[in-house]
Amino acid sequence: MRKIEHIGIAVKDIEASNALFEALLGSPAYKMEEVASEGVRTSFFKSGPNKIELLEATSADSPIAKYLDKKGEGIHHIAFDVADIEAEMARLREAGFTLLNEVPKRGADNKLVAFVHPKTAGGVLVELCQEILEEEN
Amino acid sequence: MRKIEHIGIAVKDIEASNALFEALLGSPAYKMEEVASEGVRTSFFKSGPNKIELLEATSADSPIAKYLDKKGEGIHHIAFDVADIEAEMARLREAGFTLLNEVPKRGADNKLVAFVHPKTAGGVLVELCQEILEEEN
Repeated sequence: MRKIEHIGIAVKDIEASNALFEALLGSPAYKMEEVASEGVRTSFFKSGPNKIELLEATSADSPIAKYLDKKGEGIHHIAFDVADIEAEMARLREAGFTLLNEVPKRGADNKLVAFVHPKTAGGVLVELCQEILEEEN
Repeated sequence: MRKIEHIGIAVKDIEASNALFEALLGSPAYKMEEVASEGVRTSFFKSGPNKIELLEATSADSPIAKYLDKKGEGIHHIAFDVADIEAEMARLREAGFTLLNEVPKRGADNKLVAFVHPKTAGGVLVELCQEILEEEN
């Protein structure tokens, strides 16, 4: 795990939250992206070597809709940048963590991603993400 | 705000959580520190340019004890590294955010810190932190 790649924040209204986080961070979202398979619309802000990702649900059965119903707006997950996601998943399984994905899946921002179950990680939803290189596209 | 300085995670038992996060992150906590004024014991892990801070309550009226009672273990705050904390506090007040501190206070890890009220920041407890330089000690 090479650094915090991003922090994911669940929001109810991404347009309103884009304005709020622009005011907070001092610079605007630099891109928006919908991930239909996850039922989310996302926006990204830069913070030096890190990113902040806002996530709005696009359907009532999206994991973000369920999170908002249960916990309200706030920090949803922490994502770590990894060089080899499959190796990292194997290392974590070996160490006793439960992975929410059998194999990496395609996430937002040109990444392969996998999640660690928060029940095995101190209540923290941990995402692993690996940049997809050009030749793999 | 130059980068994510650290993510703060509320834990019930810092010794057990140190072992868990060492297994998760692949390297051990590199220091522990008690901040008596905040009623917390902390440990720090490196993640490239960022840190993970675990926080255990040392008294029943610690903000971390209250957080654990209400929400359980998990991500407690996100801290951004700033060059000039007073200027950043003024900028945020001007932008309509509510600060939880009138003036910066001394936090863990040799930092001046101040918090933004989560009700004004999308449900996120935001910490500003500025490294205390040698000559200020």
